[in-house]
Amino acid sequence: MSSDFFERHQPVLERAVAAAADRGYWSPFPESPSPRNYGETANEDGRAAFEALRGKAFPLALDGADGTVGAEQSPYGFALGITYPRVRPARLVQSAARAQETWRRAGPRVWVGVSMEILARLNKRSFEIAHAVQHTTGQGFMMAFQAGGPHAQDRGLEAVAYAWQEMARIPDVALWEKPQGKNDPIKMEKRFTVVPRGTALVIGCSTFPTWNGYPGLFASLATGNTVIIKPHPAAILPLALTVQVAREVLKEAGFDPDVVQLAAHEASDDTAQQLAQDPSVKIIDFTGSSANGNWLEQNARQAQVYTEKAGVNQVIIDSADDLKGVVRNLAFSLTLYSGQMCTAPQNIYVPRDGIQTAEGPVSFDDVAAALGTAINKLCADPAKVVELTGAIQNEGIVKRVEQARALGLPVLADSQALTHPQFEGARVHTPLLLRAEAGNPDISKEWFGPIAFVVATDSTEHSIQLARDSVIQHGALSFSAYTTDDTVADHIQDAAEVSGVALSLNLTGAVFVNQTAAFSDFHGTGANPSANAALSDSAFVSNRFRVVQTRRHV
Amino acid sequence: MSSDFFERHQPVLERAVAAAADRGYWSPFPESPSPRNYGETANEDGRAAFEALRGKAFPLALDGADGTVGAEQSPYGFALGITYPRVRPARLVQSAARAQETWRRAGPRVWVGVSMEILARLNKRSFEIAHAVQHTTGQGFMMAFQAGGPHAQDRGLEAVAYAWQEMARIPDVALWEKPQGKNDPIKMEKRFTVVPRGTALVIGCSTFPTWNGYPGLFASLATGNTVIIKPHPAAILPLALTVQVAREVLKEAGFDPDVVQLAAHEASDDTAQQLAQDPSVKIIDFTGSSANGNWLEQNARQAQVYTEKAGVNQVIIDSADDLKGVVRNLAFSLTLYSGQMCTAPQNIYVPRDGIQTAEGPVSFDDVAAALGTAINKLCADPAKVVELTGAIQNEGIVKRVEQARALGLPVLADSQALTHPQFEGARVHTPLLLRAEAGNPDISKEWFGPIAFVVATDSTEHSIQLARDSVIQHGALSFSAYTTDDTVADHIQDAAEVSGVALSLNLTGAVFVNQTAAFSDFHGTGANPSANAALSDSAFVSNRFRVVQTRRHV
Repeated sequence: MSSDFFERHQPVLERAVAAAADRGYWSPFPESPSPRNYGETANEDGRAAFEALRGKAFPLALDGADGTVGAEQSPYGFALGITYPRVRPARLVQSAARAQETWRRAGPRVWVGVSMEILARLNKRSFEIAHAVQHTTGQGFMMAFQAGGPHAQDRGLEAVAYAWQEMARIPDVALWEKPQGKNDPIKMEKRFTVVPRGTALVIGCSTFPTWNGYPGLFASLATGNTVIIKPHPAAILPLALTVQVAREVLKEAGFDPDVVQLAAHEASDDTAQQLAQDPSVKIIDFTGSSANGNWLEQNARQAQVYTEKAGVNQVIIDSADDLKGVVRNLAFSLTLYSGQMCTAPQNIYVPRDGIQTAEGPVSFDDVAAALGTAINKLCADPAKVVELTGAIQNEGIVKRVEQARALGLPVLADSQALTHPQFEGARVHTPLLLRAEAGNPDISKEWFGPIAFVVATDSTEHSIQLARDSVIQHGALSFSAYTTDDTVADHIQDAAEVSGVALSLNLTGAVFVNQTAAFSDFHGTGANPSANAALSDSAFVSNRFRVVQTRRHV
Repeated sequence: MSSDFFERHQPVLERAVAAAADRGYWSPFPESPSPRNYGETANEDGRAAFEALRGKAFPLALDGADGTVGAEQSPYGFALGITYPRVRPARLVQSAARAQETWRRAGPRVWVGVSMEILARLNKRSFEIAHAVQHTTGQGFMMAFQAGGPHAQDRGLEAVAYAWQEMARIPDVALWEKPQGKNDPIKMEKRFTVVPRGTALVIGCSTFPTWNGYPGLFASLATGNTVIIKPHPAAILPLALTVQVAREVLKEAGFDPDVVQLAAHEASDDTAQQLAQDPSVKIIDFTGSSANGNWLEQNARQAQVYTEKAGVNQVIIDSADDLKGVVRNLAFSLTLYSGQMCTAPQNIYVPRDGIQTAEGPVSFDDVAAALGTAINKLCADPAKVVELTGAIQNEGIVKRVEQARALGLPVLADSQALTHPQFEGARVHTPLLLRAEAGNPDISKEWFGPIAFVVATDSTEHSIQLARDSVIQHGALSFSAYTTDDTVADHIQDAAEVSGVALSLNLTGAVFVNQTAAFSDFHGTGANPSANAALSDSAFVSNRFRVVQTRRHV
């Protein structure tokens, strides 16, 4: 049964491996929620499935459950009222170790086949997951569908593809034949077994629980590890659905479903710390704050720790052929999901003497004003823009907007609280854009949320220096630059390479710096303080398993 | 010039990549010191070169040198009298950062070409390096030649091959073309640049400075990092020669020779700690004690740390077709370089009720006695055995033999101090073999040196349990077992896989458990406490570089 899964998915797996090598566009999971892709009733079925979950105990039976937890609030203004079984950390790791016994012997084909079947079934539930993502993270529905469904599944598949590629390199058996001059050669048979590390922990975040959670989950699962998924208390449902699907597939394949477990817990208890420091937890994937990520890196010493943390994303405007395209593109990037993306731009450097454009020189003030205007224009129709902004995930982010306003900097676009036409209680806020001077220490930290700064610099060289130094010191997950000058572009690229951040040049169309595409764009580089790993590459998977060999004479 | 190096060595590189995938026998560096391989005068030239170095300042000009250090003593009983320039840690990292500027821009082909040219030139100096290894580590000449020369070069090349394989997977450029239904596709060009981590540190050991040092050195160098080599104060010369060769090649290729630097220092100063905690040191490769290795893992938090530490190597004797072959093979493994190998066997488990052999049952006492006799026989001719034992690297190991004897356990073969026919002052000691009971806490730690125990167990199942638990708790770099029973072999293999140690089954011929062959055997697994990495695999190289991409519309 479980090896059937491998055969069933092998063509897609091979395409995925090839796509990750070519790095052209490819995805097996349609990003359009069109009925042509997902069926006529998929949208309504997904919504109904989500509604049916509300106000009840989530249908997931976990051995050793000891009470229930769950207090998720939709950022659109209502309580989900869903409870989840709570299992204590010690019991979770104990069950994981027991489940490991048969799982680890199954080998790479089975691990990969089961992983791919889980992904295929998750894809079929993309609408239900989209509603779950929307009403935990606050994303607009389209983003919740795409980023929470097919794009997350792409990133999961990408990790499986890398894992398979690395494991498939290890031969099952080799004949070693060493010449001995005139004598017979020495002949040995060597068998190589891929063995997992043990138990893996995935620590989910509140904004992209599936997109940021799937790479670690599938990288660990496909390399034979058991996985405990600890969701953020504010965004349990998307990962609970994921765990439900994973366990259903594991059971069908004849394995202990505790190969994948859910660690739902109360906000601010120490479940994460307990799990992270358990001696049997050998791998941790984390997305969240720098404080928590750094704590894991410092304290979970028994584990391989893969973190994605905070960063201060950088934009340089040097010159432009199409300034309208520039500000339109940036305004969209700032407004999308109210800047609650690890890749959303924050500091936009513009020389105080202005820039060159196709229509001649434009002053700093005019560039800054054009950006503010572009945001206001984009946000002019609340009924439309709420689909773009979504809702603010938590009250802390609303407070942060107030704190930014309290800096007293000149306001280029003010954040407005909007009423959502569909959800009365939704926290909807448009971006706050402020003007700042280079060197202002307030802008050197991350302002997660709909907050950005247009920063006056001495020159583009100064902008480059500021961006490079900020990436080295504070990290960044994105770096965007606009220039019509090839020499400047080269300098900027050099700064990106020295500081270790991916660069997007002259985005004025339908691609935004916030977005990365699986199989083509590496998400994060692992080379600056915002993340110690990239999604996905060999380094992300190759240390999640080890090889044990047995040699004997033949 | 430097790209010529790549072209010159490309055929060997491609063979190396293929060999590491097939894992059959292969080596480009002849292990026999025969004049046919190295030329008629190579042996004498190498000896003369070594002698010419004695009693002088080593010919290596390092910028910023501030005095000299060096107090190496040959374990064969004389002082080398060689001094080396001393450069302070702060200056070393500063020079490395400066050298990095042009080196990092050179790219994978140049990094790999330069690395392979260094290896080719090191091979030509194998005799000189052999004498240097012999008179710092105490190895016999043949081992010093093979392990210190061609086998070390093999392990260096293996690391380069893996590094090349991983970097070659990253395309220089990709066209990303995303369909947009009836509209034109979105087209982007994406360029990918391999960037190094920064400065790498290699911490050498006193027993296999080149064999254990080359994998980290070449893995880091071939991925564009600058490298500071900090030799053990007792074994500087082999790595000083290596640095000399590396700098000569770098200079010829037009690079700042400070891409590779030597950090010779006084014994017991804090050079290692200072370098290891410098913020610009991003990679550390270490071979040595568990105390120092664990310290690095805990404290050098800014760096990727690859360690090989202590372990307690395990042997199980369950049954044998050829008991004479078993004890002959084990006696050789125990005597070779006086057990001063991280892979030398230590605890040999035998059921107290004896074992089955082709000639019928043999009692525990007879198995133990046969082992003792085999050692005594092997050591009967001092003039011959000194070539095998070499000399004891340091006085601490001689003391450890006395401590083992003082345990008061029954002696199966006593350690004898022998006089070396050629080197009067050489510290030569044959193995001490003791009888112990299972559960004796004294044998659960590593007794590095010519010290081993035959351990009486309740049964082979008990032996397996002891071996497995010891590997999990204390680590092991080797595990050897003898059995004629396929079911027992399966149980032993399962124990090896669960505990994460490579297994050798029924070695009775010309292969010894101490030895691993590059391109075929992984050295270490990274899956037990004795080492957190294996030599070499993808995990050993893939995180030494990162990828920075630049995308733009086309």
